[in-house]
Amino acid sequence: MSADDAALLIAPDTTVGLSGFTASGYPTAVPLALAARIEAEHTAGRPFKLRIWTGASTGPELDGALAKADGIEFRLPYNSDPTCRDKINRGQMEYFDMHLSQVAPAAWQGILGPLDTAIIQVTGVREDGALIPASSVGNNKTWLDRASQVILEVNHWQSPDLLGMHDIYYGAALPPNRVPIPLIRAGDRIGEPCFRCDPDKIAAIVETDRPDRNAGFTTPDTDDLAIAGHLLEFLEHEVKRGRLPPSLLPLQSGVGNTANAVLTGLINAPFDDLTAYTEVIQDGMMALLDSGKLRMASSTALSLSPDLSESVNRRMGEYGDRIILRSQEISNHPELIRRLGVIAMNGMIEADIYGNVNSTHVMGSRIQNGIGGSGDFARNAYISVFMSASTAKGGAISTIVPSVSHVDHINQDVQVIVTEQGLADLRGLSPKQRARAVIETCAHPDYRPMLADYHARALKGSYGLQTPMLLEEALSWHARFVRSGSMRPD
Amino acid sequence: MSADDAALLIAPDTTVGLSGFTASGYPTAVPLALAARIEAEHTAGRPFKLRIWTGASTGPELDGALAKADGIEFRLPYNSDPTCRDKINRGQMEYFDMHLSQVAPAAWQGILGPLDTAIIQVTGVREDGALIPASSVGNNKTWLDRASQVILEVNHWQSPDLLGMHDIYYGAALPPNRVPIPLIRAGDRIGEPCFRCDPDKIAAIVETDRPDRNAGFTTPDTDDLAIAGHLLEFLEHEVKRGRLPPSLLPLQSGVGNTANAVLTGLINAPFDDLTAYTEVIQDGMMALLDSGKLRMASSTALSLSPDLSESVNRRMGEYGDRIILRSQEISNHPELIRRLGVIAMNGMIEADIYGNVNSTHVMGSRIQNGIGGSGDFARNAYISVFMSASTAKGGAISTIVPSVSHVDHINQDVQVIVTEQGLADLRGLSPKQRARAVIETCAHPDYRPMLADYHARALKGSYGLQTPMLLEEALSWHARFVRSGSMRPD
Repeated sequence: MSADDAALLIAPDTTVGLSGFTASGYPTAVPLALAARIEAEHTAGRPFKLRIWTGASTGPELDGALAKADGIEFRLPYNSDPTCRDKINRGQMEYFDMHLSQVAPAAWQGILGPLDTAIIQVTGVREDGALIPASSVGNNKTWLDRASQVILEVNHWQSPDLLGMHDIYYGAALPPNRVPIPLIRAGDRIGEPCFRCDPDKIAAIVETDRPDRNAGFTTPDTDDLAIAGHLLEFLEHEVKRGRLPPSLLPLQSGVGNTANAVLTGLINAPFDDLTAYTEVIQDGMMALLDSGKLRMASSTALSLSPDLSESVNRRMGEYGDRIILRSQEISNHPELIRRLGVIAMNGMIEADIYGNVNSTHVMGSRIQNGIGGSGDFARNAYISVFMSASTAKGGAISTIVPSVSHVDHINQDVQVIVTEQGLADLRGLSPKQRARAVIETCAHPDYRPMLADYHARALKGSYGLQTPMLLEEALSWHARFVRSGSMRPD
Repeated sequence: MSADDAALLIAPDTTVGLSGFTASGYPTAVPLALAARIEAEHTAGRPFKLRIWTGASTGPELDGALAKADGIEFRLPYNSDPTCRDKINRGQMEYFDMHLSQVAPAAWQGILGPLDTAIIQVTGVREDGALIPASSVGNNKTWLDRASQVILEVNHWQSPDLLGMHDIYYGAALPPNRVPIPLIRAGDRIGEPCFRCDPDKIAAIVETDRPDRNAGFTTPDTDDLAIAGHLLEFLEHEVKRGRLPPSLLPLQSGVGNTANAVLTGLINAPFDDLTAYTEVIQDGMMALLDSGKLRMASSTALSLSPDLSESVNRRMGEYGDRIILRSQEISNHPELIRRLGVIAMNGMIEADIYGNVNSTHVMGSRIQNGIGGSGDFARNAYISVFMSASTAKGGAISTIVPSVSHVDHINQDVQVIVTEQGLADLRGLSPKQRARAVIETCAHPDYRPMLADYHARALKGSYGLQTPMLLEEALSWHARFVRSGSMRPD
């Protein structure tokens, strides 16, 4: 069917679940046709909005096009598209930013409402009707199972060698029928290579030939390299102390340049036979696989820069026994993260002196992307690391603040904070002990005296001294930034 | 050995792990003797402080006596003793307030430091050397395994019929050797009835005969009854919609009068064959067991009021197949809470209009008790409920505020908020949708217009509109209370 015809199958005021976890494996042709249809309807004066569910972020042909057409009323569970972000922060789109492991269970629980249409990119359809997944899995299994109708995009750009690399677990259930998930090592396979789908539900199949569209990486800057250096030194120290095995424990790494620098740094670090249990495989992790240092990686998505993506596509057969792509409820499952003892490494917007972390909201109210899988990983990790340069906007923002303006990760879930200034190991420390470590180790020298002064005054003037706080000053740095463009004193 | 002699085995500047989860099954004689010894040392001008680890809160003979003697330098993972609380909030005691499921794994991981002495109350010692646990399990297995020396208190007050009611799981390990925990129903037994302990490590056995010392309950007030009514109505509604089975799912209930009122209310609610998977069994849960409505309860502690405690002690044999007491790493394990689909019901200090919850810090800095198990349960629950009256201190405090002054539970982990005013079902809602529901449904009428006004102005003046916030006003209600004794306008 043509994408235009497939787009006609979607009614206004319905809910659409789409594939895509990062700009990988997301449908493009039908969303573009749908966006054009919505724009035409709007021009004709007819309202047309949808509720949009995905795996995580997608690419410009999906989130970007639908948002530009003003076609999204409600969005979950994660977004990084700039047009969506702008509409969300202008109050023109409702956005429910969810723990990524909880999306599929919540859909089954029925609390998100019914799912009318699934639009899923696949690599191919087998003769027996099974669907060969593409470069991301995300919530596709659940969307296929739950939707009233299914639209498939068969993307011929995807490598046929992806067949066999996926592990689609069909053992999930609602309580009281849940059972232990039988995964004990990052490399275990517990499912099937393809999605099942009732052929009667398939309303359209559209053929495409379009590459994934993930952003590239910039060369790591000196801050990225310093952060990576501190973190690798810490991991070496933990191995020497006998608190981590020589091959570490399965690695989880968030998205972005700093995470990429850490992974690249591991190529020359004294660890072998590494594994990864993560939600995205970025360029740095592919380099680590290619180096032989990383034995295998489990993920829900390949999220590679354009050039590497093409190159890996040509060589996909080489990775068949070293990459496993799973549903995001499994890649991010608390049961498995805790069992495996994952080392979680995620970026942040800001941390406060007590180690509470804001991953999502700039100045407390403007959302950047979303909490994504960071909550799944941080709370259940063996070691939970958050990292960022100590300043942003050319020094106008300190990423270490008296109080974070929004909390995504409570201090109990934040064990290690790393900036280019240093690494604070907060495990086992009380709030005041944490504050001393964060101020002395992580804060930028330009802001360190201000933080130390705030903390010293809070130790005198706070209502209670478990977590000293000056209520009238706690958010004043953010207020000053909004007012003057800088957290530095006026 | 006498308690005085046993207390001499403990050196200053060491770490002591004690039994106790609520004022149940905690040692009394040795801590009292230790407190006397510390006071004598202090009088003689010699410093004597300890690092104290427990299961959760304990009773006055332990936390109270050691704190009065100024003998605690550092305390984890939970406290409700008033003397400790006072010292913590004066900055005279360091306190690390932990997720209760994570204490034992953290001790094994080695990040809390070495454990010198375990002081564990037991019901008895069997001829084969196995230790019969008392009315709470807590972290006792881990303290017995990890400590260099062990002091036992055999409490003859405990019922001998406790033998066989415990389920001590010996399958825990550090990664990469962790395996699935084979518990599928709240009533499954996966361990042993007694603790193992190397006899060579037992440095002293002290005999006592002293009752547990939990506080009693007051008659539920009208707010408690209203909250219970709203919650029971919600659960009935969920069953009618087919989103919960008729026997619900395993219940978790926090401590306190409101939780007790909810449990008591279930006696006359149209649900049968209930189960509980929780961390404390309070009076209301015993009444529910006695009514026959609750088939069985799994917990880490019996936490009964004095009269009921004596009565249950005499009838303990009747509960042998209906109560299971487990280690707190199992009663609170994320893997099991998520698998079982626990309905988590916990109290709170305050919630903000977006549904972030503060369970611990009054006015952001003064700790009340601690996060306890609420984080283990809330994030992994099938339905996560937080409840409180909508005002406190005779109306001077609104428990619904523009921004909470401390975050223990992020909005994603808070699905239902109940006050005496009503119940807000926040599942699947974006932040602005949540704010409307919380303000309209949960806030007290005296504060509702102030909250609606704040939110309306935030919708105009906020930096971003995902989670509208006025940085200079977000904590002003708390600041006003500290200044004037009331959150009402000056």
